[in-house]
Amino acid sequence: MVDSRAIGVFDSGLGGLTVLAAMRHAMPNESMVYLGDTARVPYGTKSAQTVVNYALSNAQTLLNHGPLKMLVVACNTVSSVALPALQEALSIPVVGVITPGAKAAFASKASSIAVLATAGTVASNAYEISLRQMGFTGTVISKACPLFVPLVEEGMVEGAIAEAIVEHYLADVPRSVDAIILGCTHYPLLLPALQKVFSARVQWIDSGKKTAIFVQQELEKQDLLASPSNTPTYHYLVSDAPARFEQLSAFYFGEPVEKGNVELVDIKASVENR
Amino acid sequence: MVDSRAIGVFDSGLGGLTVLAAMRHAMPNESMVYLGDTARVPYGTKSAQTVVNYALSNAQTLLNHGPLKMLVVACNTVSSVALPALQEALSIPVVGVITPGAKAAFASKASSIAVLATAGTVASNAYEISLRQMGFTGTVISKACPLFVPLVEEGMVEGAIAEAIVEHYLADVPRSVDAIILGCTHYPLLLPALQKVFSARVQWIDSGKKTAIFVQQELEKQDLLASPSNTPTYHYLVSDAPARFEQLSAFYFGEPVEKGNVELVDIKASVENR
Repeated sequence: MVDSRAIGVFDSGLGGLTVLAAMRHAMPNESMVYLGDTARVPYGTKSAQTVVNYALSNAQTLLNHGPLKMLVVACNTVSSVALPALQEALSIPVVGVITPGAKAAFASKASSIAVLATAGTVASNAYEISLRQMGFTGTVISKACPLFVPLVEEGMVEGAIAEAIVEHYLADVPRSVDAIILGCTHYPLLLPALQKVFSARVQWIDSGKKTAIFVQQELEKQDLLASPSNTPTYHYLVSDAPARFEQLSAFYFGEPVEKGNVELVDIKASVENR
Repeated sequence: MVDSRAIGVFDSGLGGLTVLAAMRHAMPNESMVYLGDTARVPYGTKSAQTVVNYALSNAQTLLNHGPLKMLVVACNTVSSVALPALQEALSIPVVGVITPGAKAAFASKASSIAVLATAGTVASNAYEISLRQMGFTGTVISKACPLFVPLVEEGMVEGAIAEAIVEHYLADVPRSVDAIILGCTHYPLLLPALQKVFSARVQWIDSGKKTAIFVQQELEKQDLLASPSNTPTYHYLVSDAPARFEQLSAFYFGEPVEKGNVELVDIKASVENR
């Protein structure tokens, strides 16, 4: 059986394009629809309840666009607090980035693991919980790095300022740590500065890339893969500033997204708190 | 005649508390209601149309809370793009922070003025337009400084990283500039680093402080002042994370806000783009 429905992917903004790029590379015949909630970005400093509400409205917006066979939550903050709510609300499989990232770190045989993430992800402790459930008994040190996202968004991914900020947040992470989980979609872009500070033997775990492989395995397991001869389509939805999305996409995506496929959408959801 | 209705104040988040503090200091017998839209913060990188929609929904939320005699827009980004829409929609006077800041810079007799602000405020060119309308014929140089807000929110307002970021953005602002407008409510908190980089003779214009004086003059002019014997009330509304608001208020406000007066509100507004 083949399933030509698209995979839905959403993120708080543009960072999730790093996950989408890995997914398109891994599954070149799968159609995908990406939603970036650029009107409400960032999520990393907002409360868990608000993030859950935003996640539900994003999922609904994607489903309104067309039928989906799977929903991929490309945002670490959402994945760490909203997966149960999304899974309860939707009838299609929902995959986040935490489990694939934690699995890869566990499989790396590291005995000490650092998790770099937003304040929201760190507060949820989602990576450590996932690692412990897999049976990891080593050291986990989690660090919120709130300036990393604005730094990447400014394109300042190397040089003195980026390195000083890396040092600032990671001063007490042992330089001998075995593996570092890049627990936010923006962070892989900061590798030039991160690699200057840590030794060459650290294993860098890019949760987004691991998620692409995980999604492919899940589709296969659930008999949801598209035909190898399928001609995929790609659509991009944003809740604010489509022109800026087109301009900046190359930075996150490796190449500009398909022109004309970027659509401004109205996310019908109030800012609900309860 | 005296008018004991409250003054409404809103901002994208907590930065506007610097304006509220100046207003409370200048007008100790006026009641005030402050709304921080912490669920959708920041506004500085969002499109003008989205900022207008957010501003209208914030104003409505404040009016739903109780009668107001004036609305003060404490956010520079909103003031630079949404004042006409707010003035058209509301029947009470609406005051922003751009005109008071520009007036003070013009009155300073500076012949060169730098404007430091968010990307949205700089793109609107609101400060330069206001200065030219007043007859200013000198040099205006505007600089968007996107890392300043996250830097302040991290409490990193002095030291090597803060100074390096100031240097990064302001490298081509002449050190001999006469006046610098701090065109974002967060920026006055970064003065320790800014003052290290610029000479002691620069006149720093804090738009928020100037707005407090302007509001007082407007209330007097329009016969809207409260009685000198009025016992003022203060309420704080936030669209996300009231506990975080209480914790951080001292940083922006100089002292913690009144406990128990912080209320989580539901801003009923879709993310509309048109």
